Amino acid sequence: MSTLIKNGTIVTASDTYKADLLIEGEQITKIGKKLKDNADETIDAKGHYIIPGGIDVHTHLDMPFGGTVSNDDFDTGHKAAAFGGTTSHIDFCIQGKRQSFKKALEGWHKKADGKSGIDYGFHVAITDLNKKTMAELPQLPSMGVTSIKLFMAYKGALMVDDETLFRSMRIAADNGILTMVHAENGDVIDVLVNEALEAGNTDPIYHAKTRPAHAEAEATGRAVAMAGMANAPLYVVHMTCEGALEQLRLGQKKGWNVHGETCTQYFFMTEKDLAKPRFQGAKYVCSPPMRTKADQAALWEAVADGTLEAISTDHCVFKFKGQKDMGKGDFSKIPNGVPGIEDRMMILYSEGVRKKKISLNRWVELTATNPAKLFGLYPKKGTVAVGADADIVLWNPREKKTISAKKHHMNVDYNLYEGKTVTGVPAKVFSRGELIVDGKKWLGESGRGKFLERSKVNY
Amino acid sequence: MSTLIKNGTIVTASDTYKADLLIEGEQITKIGKKLKDNADETIDAKGHYIIPGGIDVHTHLDMPFGGTVSNDDFDTGHKAAAFGGTTSHIDFCIQGKRQSFKKALEGWHKKADGKSGIDYGFHVAITDLNKKTMAELPQLPSMGVTSIKLFMAYKGALMVDDETLFRSMRIAADNGILTMVHAENGDVIDVLVNEALEAGNTDPIYHAKTRPAHAEAEATGRAVAMAGMANAPLYVVHMTCEGALEQLRLGQKKGWNVHGETCTQYFFMTEKDLAKPRFQGAKYVCSPPMRTKADQAALWEAVADGTLEAISTDHCVFKFKGQKDMGKGDFSKIPNGVPGIEDRMMILYSEGVRKKKISLNRWVELTATNPAKLFGLYPKKGTVAVGADADIVLWNPREKKTISAKKHHMNVDYNLYEGKTVTGVPAKVFSRGELIVDGKKWLGESGRGKFLERSKVNY
Amino acid sequence: MSTLIKNGTIVTASDTYKADLLIEGEQITKIGKKLKDNADETIDAKGHYIIPGGIDVHTHLDMPFGGTVSNDDFDTGHKAAAFGGTTSHIDFCIQGKRQSFKKALEGWHKKADGKSGIDYGFHVAITDLNKKTMAELPQLPSMGVTSIKLFMAYKGALMVDDETLFRSMRIAADNGILTMVHAENGDVIDVLVNEALEAGNTDPIYHAKTRPAHAEAEATGRAVAMAGMANAPLYVVHMTCEGALEQLRLGQKKGWNVHGETCTQYFFMTEKDLAKPRFQGAKYVCSPPMRTKADQAALWEAVADGTLEAISTDHCVFKFKGQKDMGKGDFSKIPNGVPGIEDRMMILYSEGVRKKKISLNRWVELTATNPAKLFGLYPKKGTVAVGADADIVLWNPREKKTISAKKHHMNVDYNLYEGKTVTGVPAKVFSRGELIVDGKKWLGESGRGKFLERSKVNY
Amino acid sequence: MSTLIKNGTIVTASDTYKADLLIEGEQITKIGKKLKDNADETIDAKGHYIIPGGIDVHTHLDMPFGGTVSNDDFDTGHKAAAFGGTTSHIDFCIQGKRQSFKKALEGWHKKADGKSGIDYGFHVAITDLNKKTMAELPQLPSMGVTSIKLFMAYKGALMVDDETLFRSMRIAADNGILTMVHAENGDVIDVLVNEALEAGNTDPIYHAKTRPAHAEAEATGRAVAMAGMANAPLYVVHMTCEGALEQLRLGQKKGWNVHGETCTQYFFMTEKDLAKPRFQGAKYVCSPPMRTKADQAALWEAVADGTLEAISTDHCVFKFKGQKDMGKGDFSKIPNGVPGIEDRMMILYSEGVRKKKISLNRWVELTATNPAKLFGLYPKKGTVAVGADADIVLWNPREKKTISAKKHHMNVDYNLYEGKTVTGVPAKVFSRGELIVDGKKWLGESGRGKFLERSKVNY
Repeated sequence: MSTLIKNGTIVTASDTYKADLLIEGEQITKIGKKLKDNADETIDAKGHYIIPGGIDVHTHLDMPFGGTVSNDDFDTGHKAAAFGGTTSHIDFCIQGKRQSFKKALEGWHKKADGKSGIDYGFHVAITDLNKKTMAELPQLPSMGVTSIKLFMAYKGALMVDDETLFRSMRIAADNGILTMVHAENGDVIDVLVNEALEAGNTDPIYHAKTRPAHAEAEATGRAVAMAGMANAPLYVVHMTCEGALEQLRLGQKKGWNVHGETCTQYFFMTEKDLAKPRFQGAKYVCSPPMRTKADQAALWEAVADGTLEAISTDHCVFKFKGQKDMGKGDFSKIPNGVPGIEDRMMILYSEGVRKKKISLNRWVELTATNPAKLFGLYPKKGTVAVGADADIVLWNPREKKTISAKKHHMNVDYNLYEGKTVTGVPAKVFSRGELIVDGKKWLGESGRGKFLERSKVNY
Repeated sequence: MSTLIKNGTIVTASDTYKADLLIEGEQITKIGKKLKDNADETIDAKGHYIIPGGIDVHTHLDMPFGGTVSNDDFDTGHKAAAFGGTTSHIDFCIQGKRQSFKKALEGWHKKADGKSGIDYGFHVAITDLNKKTMAELPQLPSMGVTSIKLFMAYKGALMVDDETLFRSMRIAADNGILTMVHAENGDVIDVLVNEALEAGNTDPIYHAKTRPAHAEAEATGRAVAMAGMANAPLYVVHMTCEGALEQLRLGQKKGWNVHGETCTQYFFMTEKDLAKPRFQGAKYVCSPPMRTKADQAALWEAVADGTLEAISTDHCVFKFKGQKDMGKGDFSKIPNGVPGIEDRMMILYSEGVRKKKISLNRWVELTATNPAKLFGLYPKKGTVAVGADADIVLWNPREKKTISAKKHHMNVDYNLYEGKTVTGVPAKVFSRGELIVDGKKWLGESGRGKFLERSKVNY
Repeated sequence: MSTLIKNGTIVTASDTYKADLLIEGEQITKIGKKLKDNADETIDAKGHYIIPGGIDVHTHLDMPFGGTVSNDDFDTGHKAAAFGGTTSHIDFCIQGKRQSFKKALEGWHKKADGKSGIDYGFHVAITDLNKKTMAELPQLPSMGVTSIKLFMAYKGALMVDDETLFRSMRIAADNGILTMVHAENGDVIDVLVNEALEAGNTDPIYHAKTRPAHAEAEATGRAVAMAGMANAPLYVVHMTCEGALEQLRLGQKKGWNVHGETCTQYFFMTEKDLAKPRFQGAKYVCSPPMRTKADQAALWEAVADGTLEAISTDHCVFKFKGQKDMGKGDFSKIPNGVPGIEDRMMILYSEGVRKKKISLNRWVELTATNPAKLFGLYPKKGTVAVGADADIVLWNPREKKTISAKKHHMNVDYNLYEGKTVTGVPAKVFSRGELIVDGKKWLGESGRGKFLERSKVNY
Repeated sequence: MSTLIKNGTIVTASDTYKADLLIEGEQITKIGKKLKDNADETIDAKGHYIIPGGIDVHTHLDMPFGGTVSNDDFDTGHKAAAFGGTTSHIDFCIQGKRQSFKKALEGWHKKADGKSGIDYGFHVAITDLNKKTMAELPQLPSMGVTSIKLFMAYKGALMVDDETLFRSMRIAADNGILTMVHAENGDVIDVLVNEALEAGNTDPIYHAKTRPAHAEAEATGRAVAMAGMANAPLYVVHMTCEGALEQLRLGQKKGWNVHGETCTQYFFMTEKDLAKPRFQGAKYVCSPPMRTKADQAALWEAVADGTLEAISTDHCVFKFKGQKDMGKGDFSKIPNGVPGIEDRMMILYSEGVRKKKISLNRWVELTATNPAKLFGLYPKKGTVAVGADADIVLWNPREKKTISAKKHHMNVDYNLYEGKTVTGVPAKVFSRGELIVDGKKWLGESGRGKFLERSKVNY
């Protein structure tokens, strides 16, 4: 099977140019001027950008959390991703207590098997580091997993102590594994949450008030310093605030191998959204919480100047009715998470590129190229180049679309951007050469997505 | 009893001027031009500075540590202090496990009773914060104690977790108590110490190598952020390195109520001293460890620009023979601590003031005025002014002295500055109007020193 | 003549304590507890602070500017100063073209002779540096002048080029003279002013718009770097904005000998005041212009953290009717300057000390002690200490007063703080032991003020 | 004419991948897997990188300076460039006094006509901005010139005052022209040079001593602030020191449109090279002068973190014998300039990429892609992509070469890197599809290089 895409404008992390592009099988095999038209299919991409399919390295599909399960699975989540122009993602496989990593991964593989619509990888989230699992850690790359995550928050549940974090970093570094952290000070938060509940402050807004920005800044600084001391690469997930960026920059300035991402929602929502009446604030509950306008400005600056290298979603959806409302009367019981996997590329293009916060090339870099490079997927994924997988999006930069939960493909009854009209949408989406989304039609087959065995990266 | 001191140059934190000074009873009652000579005693202070007696807010006399006891008690320690021009100090009363603060203080009072040569106060070092002691905490000021200390290092021994630290800060702030921290990341250090010992690295130098500067910088940043979130005043003890100063400054810049001290030895010793042959390095083992030349420069800058507000000693002495050698073959067993209470004022004058690192007034401010203000002793102590206690030193700025363990008054068989000749020494030392040191003579009576009931401070 | 002041609270740059104070002749001769009451006069200062008289190192009395003359002379200006608690000032003697410094100083001495009510000194403002005056420069200290000023703005009038500035700095440094600069980029301003006038933008607000903050920041950075290269001490006058502070701090961080002041009005007025209707904006026209709220916050931070060492006024008054209106229809013709010499101490106490922006001691330091130390007047002036001139203010911290041009003593028909009620006013003001202001009464004799021969300072 | 390059590894500013590449005529027309081998020529590039030809935006060929003329003209300079892997450059056309820009450009075109071996563009260096030339400035883009340069140094010769600089920036910004500055404070330098010569300090080292780093830092800060106020894009040429980078970063942080380059030599030479005996120091005389090791480290950090966006050479050669020696006995008469156009790509690859100071992609970005983008040459030049000019270098990353003046192609009798062995050299160099350098052979025809009409850039 071959497809010729004519007259498009190819956009990579550094280049923008007009050319034809030929897909043969699963790969891009030729880019040229006026390529001969003898492919099985020919598509005219005039007026469209040809970009690498988005890569979302921070998602939680089908994940148990606080007595419920996140509502997008590897079926609905993958379709939603694809409709938004994202063709690969890396999900978090959460180790159970006393569980081996192998066992944990088997569980997560099962969630994807037979359902997957796009390609996917796994990070392992470590919750129980003991002698046994410490010995198993070096084997993760042989299972296709080259990144682990540890939680500095969620005391009594996922949170690890500094010793575990430091030991993990050391072993990870020795074995070509990237350490990721959820950086919030769980002890401080725990005290504040208890204080709030005791004082009868139970509304969603207290989720934000009990997780102050400096609890994140502090934990970020701690993880950064520990990575520096461990001589280990670090990736701080979902950074949201000025104080945390300040700490990341201090580490980068010292020459440490420390990286950071933010997520789409943090550019647009604020703490005030959590104060919306009639429990609507619960829709915006995720951790870290939404911050302030000043933090949003700091985030835009940080993605533009290179401090932050990737934008992901932390996609983890719970229905407003039936799931989020588990936290009525006690904000600490609201399942944490917001939808985003489908909206990311569009929102960032429309609000970021068009409004000159980031360049067109930087958008590609932040949403696809850097994620691929940081997580061992490059050059198979993350760019439009000969030899790469034909994970390609034909992007129509002029088409408008109004975002709404009524029409989106995510399995959740609300959307953070409800009613917002974006300009710039995916027209056609290819995954390994296969046209899986054509406008509003889903063309992929369930189970077609492949597990991504990721390489070790030389940071 | 009255004493007239004529022709001296009075030096305060801001002023330098010539005047006569009259002591009546325990206080300074008059400062003037050509005061009438009808006092019981008259002293000609021509060519001398009249400065407030030094205040050392960080000492460990008669303290149990790792199976031994620090070798200066309230007798020898007080005499040594006085011979160095220091007339007040605040010692750490260490709470025992399951012990009330009251009980702990009683124990420490006993150590001083009948021995004290100068005035003394206590900080309470919290090691066991439970419901009971949490309820007792607000009563400390009524016991004359307005500062507490928590340890972020010494895992398994003195170290508290972040929850304890944060809760303590909140209660302390509500009750006019200052929270002090020993800021080093105990988890990281614990891993590194174990790694070193397992690798057979047992020499004193590994004390420094397993307590990296960034373990201190990290913990400093953490304590600072927690103080910011708790809206509590904070005092970081014995700061030693650039990274820690960086974190303190970030907090000060945010308008947080965060303060820091360093200790004399950190300006002069480096990690290299710990590598001295024949176990001599053990003499320099204290925590945090000695750092680098670059850190020393950063410390001088920080005391000059106001980042650091006090210089103390962390005086805690163990004999080289019989105590330090408990750590032969295992650096982690070397009792932590170095001598300094006698040398502080002289070393800082000779190396700081004379070499133009700090001004004469700033020397007084760092060693007496600020300590008094920060710890609730001002204006009774810490300045030369009418109405203040006549804790006064006649300082001879031209007299030279060669420092040596053979001649010092500290109860320890070595001195960090052995053989160094300083210029500038105390000629006469008064404590509450009483001449207790006259040149090389000790004139005080055992037990004359009084417990300092300290006030709450409005930071 | 002797005066005993009983029961007051003496406040210096570092100390606050209760004591009696005796003045004999022109000096403070005794401070003590319960001083014997045998003086010629006895005053009960209960409830009052006893502070050093304010020192305003930046004033322009009786100065020709743009075709008119500033309206306060050494008679009215001195009285106004005294009523505000200021007992010394240093005025700018402006060198005329082709004039020797000696000649220029003679002219300024004449302005003061027979009129002066308080003590005064002169800086020389250099406008013509040629071989002759370069040779004369080293002799300034012998004329009692140890500071010079150069203008980087007012192109075509007072402005000097970088060569003149740099040469002056070098000679000044070699001769114990402090170089002061008015730091704004005159070239940029000149272009912007011409552009504005050509575009028909003639209202007072364009004074601010054509003198952007970065024109000041730039010139500040330039002067700081030149002082660094010249190895010369520098004092940047009337700093107003964040960008300028940033540049000053960079220089201080490099260890350069660079100092800065701001003026009272910059804490309170903003650019918006220049937009007041009916030409009222002209009342607020001075250079640099008023800035923004953010800059005000930056200034408060800078006086609190030590970046800025003094607060003066740049007092230079022109009547709204008859002088300011010379600029109707052309903002560039509005005489530059605002009143302030009388209000400074009260405004800073009421808005600074009472609102906890600066401490009581820091207020004394910024308005009296540091100015005295920086400009060679200390310890004769600038503190309350035995041996110092009895320039003393009894300050009533509780008395309220509503500021108004109707009642003030400055010779100008408006006041920047019209209608504002301050708490804290001078009750009695002494100059060299003489009570010159007693509540609302002026008791001084014309011509009593003395010229201050200033010393070289070792920065 | 067509050329097929097989089996190479294409390297762009963001991507690295294996593919075949087809050149037809002057352009790259196809990139693909296993392209059919029916081109006129086929080259096997196995083991080679295929990179875009280097672009050197800062050169001075055939330029009059201080009574002599720089020794490489558009013949020798172009060949040297090509042998080093550089296929485009932008030279400075210096406006004469009272000369129109048009006239000036005509003169420079003549220098190139008939000699050029590679493509070239011109910046106009403004030395005389008057009403006439101000009116002509907007027409530069129609002459193919979209950048101007002004000198803040060389007082009495090229230096302009701030008014000229500011006016130029404003007009340039309005007309799509980039303003470049040589940032050194000419006034300060002038004073220092005169002082040095008067003191009999005439050796080459005094070239460095009289042009201190802070004279550059100051002027950089000034230009940056002026660009900010003018709302104009700025490009600071040949940045050499930490202080200057600090000022550039402050401007970038404020969101200003300010850019900077450094030149190869500043990473490797220091002031000490100017102190070499027997007048050898003169070989290293260029402005700004070589700095310190610390500045070199700061430069590497700045090219890695994005502060600096390009690396050029300031290539401007004068023979040691016959030209440099004009300055014997007076360092200020040494013609300013050093060779570099031939060495740049090799030195940066060998010392930068191989020693992990910068990545392979960043090397391409700094030496070709960014220069093309900043100066209106992209996407015709600066990348390897379909549709771009086939300016291509086959780079052999393993081949070694020892640099020597005996073998280099620059018309000068010394080389800064004499005797240094680099790893990584150009094997074949194509300019617009034509193989002009093949190993050691020059294959181009004189006059083949074309003038580059540059586009306006939207910064």
